[in-house]
Amino acid sequence: MAKNVGILAMEIYFPPTCVQQEALEAHDGASKGKYTIGLGQDCMAFCTEVEDVISMSLTAVTSLLAKYKIDPKQIGRLEVGSETVIDKSKSIKTFLMQIFEKSGNTDIEGVDSTNACYGGTAALFNCVNWVESRSWDGRYGLVVCTDSAVYAEGPARPTGGAAAIAMLIGPDAPIAFESKFRGSHMSHVYDFYKPNLASEYPVVDGKLSQTCYLMALDTCYKYFCHKYEKLEGKQFSLSDADYFVFHSPYNKLVQKSFARLVFNDFTRNVSSVDDITKEKLGPFSTLTGDESYQSRDLEKASQQVSKPLYDAKVQPTTLIPKQVGNMYTASLYAAFASLIHNKNSELAGQRVVLFSYGSGLTSTMFSLRLHEGQHPFSLSNIATVMNVAGKLKSRHEFSPDKFVETMKLMEHRYGAKDFVTSKDCSLLSPGTYYLTEVDSKYRRYYAMKDGECSTCENGAVANGH
Amino acid sequence: MAKNVGILAMEIYFPPTCVQQEALEAHDGASKGKYTIGLGQDCMAFCTEVEDVISMSLTAVTSLLAKYKIDPKQIGRLEVGSETVIDKSKSIKTFLMQIFEKSGNTDIEGVDSTNACYGGTAALFNCVNWVESRSWDGRYGLVVCTDSAVYAEGPARPTGGAAAIAMLIGPDAPIAFESKFRGSHMSHVYDFYKPNLASEYPVVDGKLSQTCYLMALDTCYKYFCHKYEKLEGKQFSLSDADYFVFHSPYNKLVQKSFARLVFNDFTRNVSSVDDITKEKLGPFSTLTGDESYQSRDLEKASQQVSKPLYDAKVQPTTLIPKQVGNMYTASLYAAFASLIHNKNSELAGQRVVLFSYGSGLTSTMFSLRLHEGQHPFSLSNIATVMNVAGKLKSRHEFSPDKFVETMKLMEHRYGAKDFVTSKDCSLLSPGTYYLTEVDSKYRRYYAMKDGECSTCENGAVANGH
Repeated sequence: MAKNVGILAMEIYFPPTCVQQEALEAHDGASKGKYTIGLGQDCMAFCTEVEDVISMSLTAVTSLLAKYKIDPKQIGRLEVGSETVIDKSKSIKTFLMQIFEKSGNTDIEGVDSTNACYGGTAALFNCVNWVESRSWDGRYGLVVCTDSAVYAEGPARPTGGAAAIAMLIGPDAPIAFESKFRGSHMSHVYDFYKPNLASEYPVVDGKLSQTCYLMALDTCYKYFCHKYEKLEGKQFSLSDADYFVFHSPYNKLVQKSFARLVFNDFTRNVSSVDDITKEKLGPFSTLTGDESYQSRDLEKASQQVSKPLYDAKVQPTTLIPKQVGNMYTASLYAAFASLIHNKNSELAGQRVVLFSYGSGLTSTMFSLRLHEGQHPFSLSNIATVMNVAGKLKSRHEFSPDKFVETMKLMEHRYGAKDFVTSKDCSLLSPGTYYLTEVDSKYRRYYAMKDGECSTCENGAVANGH
Repeated sequence: MAKNVGILAMEIYFPPTCVQQEALEAHDGASKGKYTIGLGQDCMAFCTEVEDVISMSLTAVTSLLAKYKIDPKQIGRLEVGSETVIDKSKSIKTFLMQIFEKSGNTDIEGVDSTNACYGGTAALFNCVNWVESRSWDGRYGLVVCTDSAVYAEGPARPTGGAAAIAMLIGPDAPIAFESKFRGSHMSHVYDFYKPNLASEYPVVDGKLSQTCYLMALDTCYKYFCHKYEKLEGKQFSLSDADYFVFHSPYNKLVQKSFARLVFNDFTRNVSSVDDITKEKLGPFSTLTGDESYQSRDLEKASQQVSKPLYDAKVQPTTLIPKQVGNMYTASLYAAFASLIHNKNSELAGQRVVLFSYGSGLTSTMFSLRLHEGQHPFSLSNIATVMNVAGKLKSRHEFSPDKFVETMKLMEHRYGAKDFVTSKDCSLLSPGTYYLTEVDSKYRRYYAMKDGECSTCENGAVANGH
């Protein structure tokens, strides 16, 4: 069986268009700090009318193949995780086939995986399992997470975002799965869902969703620890991993989540919990599970005691989610990309534990073991290719008014047919795909901005006919 | 690594409500034989207002667990293939978690796989790969294909249908994968898709879709043969498999598909092609690929020469698709279930080749090797449990008028909220789940018809709150 199967290479794309959360607060008449401190968010990326989840994923995949010099013929499986539905039957994966058909490679397994923000994790697990299975034909797998998170006007709107991430999967990876350390929790709830089919906006019960998230985290951590102890013959605690990466709808929930794990270690009475933590959390040891989710005092105390550990083990994972916003399926992997951006080759030999959550709900905690790897599949090269700092720096800030105006246009465009876009790709980097037209039969046409971008019509992706 | 991984057990459910194609022909003013001979269909099942893809899958899974005496705690992975979207974010899998949460088992990986009629095959491959991977924890996988195929009034309407199939996955299976013999063809086309998000009906280009299907079949067969020859050191021909099972939108396309494979064997000049075939197909050997898809004479000649082989290798797979209609993701596996129903233990030792097609498009040809197996996981017991003859016999025929009336009601109900159904489960068998209510927040409530069905309210499935 193939060894050290995992992530060989990564690329991230997010729209260059964004709005500052501080400006949005003021615009919305929210109290100062509501979005920046209350939610813990700095900035939010969004698609304008020339971008969508298909164009973003075309950009991410094309860029990954080019920057790591991967021949499209070397891809044997391609899977997409997304909850942004443009078509209820035709997968995003089939749109991406345009890239591979040009090279004559159509023998590529995999479709789209869907359950809220968890689809990318499902796709990733499927791809890793494929490499470890008898079905593997020796070629690479490719996983794409792509989403545009938008909300109706109101309190949830600042928790939007948009991005696509592409990950190359194979053996001898610098980012290898420790597949036996894994705990999942799946349950039937209505915390966040999209039953209004004609609208892009979800139905959200924010309070319920936060409780579901924390309950899922507890349960996954319980199963994870149980499996670790069964296999390793010793207790697992937060000290056994170097970093913890969380699905990040907004940063405040990540802070609460890590604090919750510290509370878990305290109630499990693990040896690594220090005296200060025991003293501060002692008063909460008799709370029932339900009470503990509702207690603001516990939340405050646990965040306080966990702060040093949070700064060491979580803070390096928060850059992109705070700067780009919630990217749904891409959110967890953007947090992981932040870690690689910040620490790159220092991560060699370290263990990173990830928590993936998708409303509805599906959730898994899983473990990765990192190695420096061989160029081009090395942690340092992945950091170089992703160029997170450069991408963040070259963004264009929209005013809140212009952001709201864009959202209004996008509402009309969602599910619509028979229109052409402005084709204005002046804000996009060369190599970025963009939407040019949706015809009378809802067929979508994209082009790639070339180096010159005189007409922006070069590099048009042929329609499937 | 686990050996002989594949399908251990199966259960099929289809609505008891159906309309005869002959009656529908007359009602629609179509020429006599248009649906029955032209499409090759006998009857079509459909959901009334108390059934949907969620209720059908609840029924199929509950029944499978009960009839094969599987403890819900023994399931470690559950995946759903479907293209019938009730919610764009919350997966059908999470609805099915209700069955497992009752037993305290929430540690179950997997979500929904989506691309038209191919999602079930993707889910099946993922589940088999999981059992063969390091992530496998020794428990069973469970794959569910569930769809309701409905079309707007017009020529495509008689190609509807509805069903759910559940398949238990594990090692030492009577229906084992020959994973190395597999060819896929994936491409970006708009032959059938669902871009009108508010409508349950697809946009269909029937002629294009049929050509795409046959082109995909050719390409998959080419890759399949190539891989077989590489591994086995000899040419593959139709004589190397005992049965061929096709995704069946309507039976006529299955007839054409098998004839197309015979034409492929002829052009490949394989030794098993007999002299009559060579003589009859000779005149078409100089056609280009495109011409060959358009030639009615070739279609006729190849169907004629392939008839004896079709009767032996394909006809035993056609019962359920002809009687129930297109079941989208469940269609291929309903065809396979027909084979087990017809031949059960006679299949031991035989090879069955399947062709899965999902518009958009994704397609794979793959191979299974069958063994009698050990009770309860034996071919004969699977046939007994599925009880296909009994289920077909106990159906209730609706008049075309009543069918059309039902479709009209369902159009209004699609994507709607805040209504209660009639809760009329008089036509349903005991153990069948049915929809009772969709509340003002779009939350869906189901109940199970019990043995008595006095109120039909017993066995209500708790809402996720």
